[in-house]
Amino acid sequence: MARSRLYVDYNATAPLLPAARTAMIEAMDLPGNPSSVHGEGRAARTVVSRARDAVARLVDVPAAQVSFTSGATEAANHVLTPDFRMGRAPLKVSRLLVSAVEHPAVLAGGRFPADQVTVLGVDGDGRLDLAQLEAALGTHDPASGQPMLALQLANNETGVIQPVREASAIVKAHHGLVVVDAVQAAGRMPLSLSELGADFLILSGHKIGGPNGIGALVSAGEVLMPAPLITGGGQEKGHRGGTENLVGVAGFGAAAEAALLSLAQIADIAQLRDRMEAGMREAAPDIIIHGGGVPRLANTSFFSLPGLKAETAQIAFDMEGVAASAGAACSSGKIGESHVLKAMGADAALGAIRISLGHVHTGEDIDAFLEAFKRINARRMARLGSQAAA
Amino acid sequence: MARSRLYVDYNATAPLLPAARTAMIEAMDLPGNPSSVHGEGRAARTVVSRARDAVARLVDVPAAQVSFTSGATEAANHVLTPDFRMGRAPLKVSRLLVSAVEHPAVLAGGRFPADQVTVLGVDGDGRLDLAQLEAALGTHDPASGQPMLALQLANNETGVIQPVREASAIVKAHHGLVVVDAVQAAGRMPLSLSELGADFLILSGHKIGGPNGIGALVSAGEVLMPAPLITGGGQEKGHRGGTENLVGVAGFGAAAEAALLSLAQIADIAQLRDRMEAGMREAAPDIIIHGGGVPRLANTSFFSLPGLKAETAQIAFDMEGVAASAGAACSSGKIGESHVLKAMGADAALGAIRISLGHVHTGEDIDAFLEAFKRINARRMARLGSQAAA
Repeated sequence: MARSRLYVDYNATAPLLPAARTAMIEAMDLPGNPSSVHGEGRAARTVVSRARDAVARLVDVPAAQVSFTSGATEAANHVLTPDFRMGRAPLKVSRLLVSAVEHPAVLAGGRFPADQVTVLGVDGDGRLDLAQLEAALGTHDPASGQPMLALQLANNETGVIQPVREASAIVKAHHGLVVVDAVQAAGRMPLSLSELGADFLILSGHKIGGPNGIGALVSAGEVLMPAPLITGGGQEKGHRGGTENLVGVAGFGAAAEAALLSLAQIADIAQLRDRMEAGMREAAPDIIIHGGGVPRLANTSFFSLPGLKAETAQIAFDMEGVAASAGAACSSGKIGESHVLKAMGADAALGAIRISLGHVHTGEDIDAFLEAFKRINARRMARLGSQAAA
Repeated sequence: MARSRLYVDYNATAPLLPAARTAMIEAMDLPGNPSSVHGEGRAARTVVSRARDAVARLVDVPAAQVSFTSGATEAANHVLTPDFRMGRAPLKVSRLLVSAVEHPAVLAGGRFPADQVTVLGVDGDGRLDLAQLEAALGTHDPASGQPMLALQLANNETGVIQPVREASAIVKAHHGLVVVDAVQAAGRMPLSLSELGADFLILSGHKIGGPNGIGALVSAGEVLMPAPLITGGGQEKGHRGGTENLVGVAGFGAAAEAALLSLAQIADIAQLRDRMEAGMREAAPDIIIHGGGVPRLANTSFFSLPGLKAETAQIAFDMEGVAASAGAACSSGKIGESHVLKAMGADAALGAIRISLGHVHTGEDIDAFLEAFKRINARRMARLGSQAAA
C-alpha cells in the first residue's frame, strides 16, 4: 500500500486526541504535586479539578462522584469487592454475577473469592440472559450479604450493547448493586449513570482519545463506596492513595470533553461502518458479522471469514497497512481464543477480526480498507477453491 | 520578589526533566496498545521495553525484574501482602515490620491485617533502632510464616539514610524478606538492589523527574513474587493487569536514564545544600536541622525555627516566591503533624520546613532563598522580641 497506514483498532487504544495532547503538555509544565499547599500545588490541583468536572459531565454525575484510578482495570479491581462502606457502616456483598462476555478485568472477579463469582450465559449475539440473572438472584441468600451484578454496557469485541437498564431493574428488585463497565460505550453512545440504574460506572481514558494509565470509578453517590484497593496518602477523599497522575488526568479530562461533543457526529461513524460492512458482504457473501442484527456501538464491526483464521487475517491486514485486531488486546502480544465468541456459541478456533473506527475516519479510509479486504478475501477464495479441487 | 518563583520541593514532585518531556511527547504520537499484535502495537511495546531497561539500570538489576505500576503507592500495596508465590508454591508472610518514619503508603501496611503490622522505633535522627528489629524478629514464630521488613532507604522529610544493609543482614539471619522503599533515594544516591540485600525495591517516577502516576516494583529475581493486586489482562507477566501507561512509562524511562547520569553531579547539590544550611544557621543560630549530623540525601534540608510554626513559615515562603513544604505532600492540601518528627521525638506541633533541591539549582537560587529566609526570620525575631517584652 502506497498510502499511510490505516489504524482501525480504536477499541484497543484510540489515538490521542489533539485536545488531550495539548492538555497533557500544559500539565507537564506545571511543577507541582496536587497535594502540595504552595502555589504550584494549587495550580496542579486546579488541573485535576477541571478534568474531574469534564469526566463527570460525560456520564452525567456531580464531579464529587468521580474517583480517578490508574485505568479501568484498577477501577474494576477496586469496585469488585465484598467489602463496602455505607457511610461508616460496613456493607457486605456476598455474590458477584458477571456475564460470560465481560472484559477479563471484570471476569477475573476482582477481590471476590472465586467461589463467590457466578458467570451468567449470553445469547448468540452476546446479550445477557436475563432469565438466568433472575434465577441466580432468586437463589441468593440475602442474609449472607447483597448480590452484585457487573455488566458491560457495550462489548469490547463485538460492540453489542447489553440490556443494562432491564438488568439493573431486576437486580434492584433483589436489593443488589449494579456495576457497569462503560469503558467501550463512553464517547460512542450517550451515557448517564442514573438512567442506567447503576451504582458504579467504570471508565478508561485511552478508549476515548485520552492517554493510557488513567481511568475512573464513578459512583451514584458519595455514601456507598468500596473498600480502598490502594491505600497510602489521603488522595481522592481517601478512596485511592497515591499522587495524582497529573498529565494523565489532564488528558483524560480533555478527551472526555471532546468525546461528549463528538457524540453528535456518531451517526456519521455508523454510516461508515455500515458502508464498510455492505462492501465486505458484497465481496464475501459468506462473511459472519457477529452481533450484526442487534444494537451495537456505531464504530465496531467484528466478523469471521470461513476458512481464514483470524490470526492469519490479522497479520495479512497488518501487512496491507491496516492495523486491526483479532479479538481483544489484553495480554501482551498473545492471541488466545476469544471467550466472547465462545460464550456466543461461535467458532472460537476460527476467530474473528475487529475493526473499530474513530471520528478521524473518512469514506476514503473505508475504500482503502475494502481494497485490502478484497485482496485478502481473494486469496482466501483461491485457497478454498484449490482445497475443494484437491 | 521580582525574580521568578523558586521551586524547592523536589521531594514532593520533581519538575519534569526535558528528556522525560521529549520521550512522553514521542510516546503520545504512537497510536498503539502495547498488547496489540500489529505494527503499532509492536512500536508501543518497544517503548515499554526500552524504559524497562533504563529503570533496571538505575537499580542495577536485569530488566525482567522491573514491573511497572501506577506509582510507588500501588507498588507498596502490591508487595506488602501476606501472600507470595515462590514459583508455583505459596509462601506466607505473617508479620510486617516497618519503621515509624516510613511513608504513609508503607506505614498503612498494604494488604496486611493491622494486627500483623509492628511499628519499630527510631532514634533522634530518625534511624531505625536495630536492637528493636532484632528483638521483634526474635519473638517471631517462623511456623506462622516469614517475617518481612519494609524500610525506606532515605526519608522523604529529613532525607536521613537508613542502615538498610545492616537491617537486611539481621532480617536475612531470621529468614525474612526485605522491602526497600527507594523512592526518595533514587537519583539522589547510588542504588543497587543486591548491595542493599533487598528482595524488593519500590520506585516512583515523579520523584526523579519523570511524570506522576508511574512507578515500579523491582524484585531480586523472577521466582518470588507477591500475589497480584490488580488482575485482568496478562500484562507485566501477569503481575499487574491493565494496559500499560505508555506515556508515563516512556517518561519514567527517560528520567531514570537521566537520573543515573546525573548522580555524578550529586556532590554539587550537597555543596549548595550545605551553603544554604550555613547561611540559615548564621541568620538563625537557634535553627534545628533535623538529621543534620547523620548521613542524609544531598538535596534535602528539614529544619525548625523555634517560635515559628512550620505551617505559617510555609505560607510566608510561598508569598516570598519560594515553594517549600511543611512536611510531606501526601494528602490533598492538608497539613497534619509530621509523624516523622513525632517518631524522632521532635516538636511536631512546631513542625518543620523541608527544602529539597534539584540539579537545576544554582548558587543564585541559594542566595535568593537565603534572602527570603532572612526576611521571614527577622519577622520571627521581632515577634519573639515583642513577646519577650510583653
